[in-house]
Amino acid sequence: MRRFATMAGEMTMREPTREGVQTAAAKVAEILPPTPLLPFEVDGITLWAKAECLQPIGAFKIRGAWHRLTELSEAERARGVVGLSSGNHAQGVAWAARKLRIRATIVMPRDAPRVKLERTRALGAEIVLYERPGEDRDEVAQRVLEERGGTLVHAYADPWIIEGQGSTGIEISAQMERWAGGRPTRIVTPCGGGGLTAGLALACSEAEIVPVEPEGWDDVCRSLESGTIQSVAPDAPPTACDALQTLATRPVNFAVLKRRCRYGLRVSEAEVAAAQRFAFEHLRLVLEPGGAAGLAAVLAGKARAEGRTAVVLSGGNVDPARFAAAVLG
Amino acid sequence: MRRFATMAGEMTMREPTREGVQTAAAKVAEILPPTPLLPFEVDGITLWAKAECLQPIGAFKIRGAWHRLTELSEAERARGVVGLSSGNHAQGVAWAARKLRIRATIVMPRDAPRVKLERTRALGAEIVLYERPGEDRDEVAQRVLEERGGTLVHAYADPWIIEGQGSTGIEISAQMERWAGGRPTRIVTPCGGGGLTAGLALACSEAEIVPVEPEGWDDVCRSLESGTIQSVAPDAPPTACDALQTLATRPVNFAVLKRRCRYGLRVSEAEVAAAQRFAFEHLRLVLEPGGAAGLAAVLAGKARAEGRTAVVLSGGNVDPARFAAAVLG
Repeated sequence: MRRFATMAGEMTMREPTREGVQTAAAKVAEILPPTPLLPFEVDGITLWAKAECLQPIGAFKIRGAWHRLTELSEAERARGVVGLSSGNHAQGVAWAARKLRIRATIVMPRDAPRVKLERTRALGAEIVLYERPGEDRDEVAQRVLEERGGTLVHAYADPWIIEGQGSTGIEISAQMERWAGGRPTRIVTPCGGGGLTAGLALACSEAEIVPVEPEGWDDVCRSLESGTIQSVAPDAPPTACDALQTLATRPVNFAVLKRRCRYGLRVSEAEVAAAQRFAFEHLRLVLEPGGAAGLAAVLAGKARAEGRTAVVLSGGNVDPARFAAAVLG
Repeated sequence: MRRFATMAGEMTMREPTREGVQTAAAKVAEILPPTPLLPFEVDGITLWAKAECLQPIGAFKIRGAWHRLTELSEAERARGVVGLSSGNHAQGVAWAARKLRIRATIVMPRDAPRVKLERTRALGAEIVLYERPGEDRDEVAQRVLEERGGTLVHAYADPWIIEGQGSTGIEISAQMERWAGGRPTRIVTPCGGGGLTAGLALACSEAEIVPVEPEGWDDVCRSLESGTIQSVAPDAPPTACDALQTLATRPVNFAVLKRRCRYGLRVSEAEVAAAQRFAFEHLRLVLEPGGAAGLAAVLAGKARAEGRTAVVLSGGNVDPARFAAAVLG
């Protein structure tokens, strides 16, 4: 057991493990069919797209939320949960909470895509809004926790969340063994706080793991480059990738990333829109900007594609006008 | 063996069988993973969407083409194949032909969606265009056959094609047994010439099979109502459902439909667009208008949804401007 600083001060937190990922994968397999792994070609090379946008909530976040909430004791379940999210983790927590009959409160930014706010509410969660930028979401969540009690379910700085997201990698490995002639040698993935990325790293220890961030929101890239956790600059440019707008990764994530990721990649807003267009045309999938960041890195030639490369398409919750603008190019 | 009239005059054609569907399903399972079956809710009732738009060519047509072309003798393969299609069957035949190294020529209408023409060409097929309305596509295909020789691969009036499309139903049954508590009691499906519909009817003998057509292109609805094959009126209104613009079903299809379908349903262009919007928002899938017709019937309350109802989302090849217009509503 190691101790990490968290928003609630210093607390004991276990490290996520590969065994935990396998437990999570077994739990997820009981309630959710594997999302498809779809082949596609770039310059004559076949790659494999893991379509997490096809989860019932439209994003991989359902995995971590299910693993986390099913681990709560009866007493903890009775006190409810509090989540912090720009929208996809919100829906994951709300979905799992509804299924387990747990009260869920989610702290969300007022500028989250309307579709994410509406769906989180439709899943029965109570939403507490905060202003981004301006208010500190961790402080808002802390206030909600103090007022209502309950368990904080962080979007990425949590070993269960990391293990749950890692179940994506277990599925990718099994699917590629069947259809691609072997396990993945490389996984390119959108990266926000590093929950999914760390989970994939634990799940697929033989693969190169490549996190991709929007330009300016490259805290993980810079953290990997410097060897210590870096934050996004206060004057970071706007990005359509709302799901990847995290200010900094956390020690529980970075401990894994530092060990397993040699580098991260940055993609532009135009590259992200081009990836949404490609997924529309060649995969018939709806991707939100953040969900298309990994694909953007591949299509832009920034991520290498040879070997057996999987690309995670992490989410598809996007407002119609933004999507229409992307596919019309 | 029975004899049916076909475009090439009177020829011997076997009837499609359930055993043939099972053979096709086994062949398809070797090369294509099952497409996902995605749950969704309408008025509190859970339904199951079979996402055939996620096939490598973006439509179920890959199934029948694979079953048909793999049955050809070496001598037949050497002479090549000729297909007739508004675009999805074209891609299916081109895909299977490329994989089997067979020369493919496809007769397509000049007004087919650009994306379908381009992709068929990209798969290595030679395209012969005809004018719709005006030229008779069967006559054009006949001319191509006379000039070049080869085997005609009809889009629906062919027992192998019917059996191949029926493999969709075998997958639906297996997936619903695992996730929905039992085999489907009803399958709602877009219907053009009746290849897929007849295949589903053979595959899922215990389910009610409900074909759905665009208003005005309701030859199967009227054929079921009258008990004999009816054609689309010469003044049929325009429809965005290019994949469902067939003038009439054929005896090899209707023999199955008549036995197994009590009625068909008609949907409006607005209902189809609303279904495309629903799939975008709730399933994160890109559907072409024709691929959304079954879903449209469910969402409009025209198809019953109780029991264990599956809806086939048959294709997702659509030009960006048309799709953007549909999702923006």
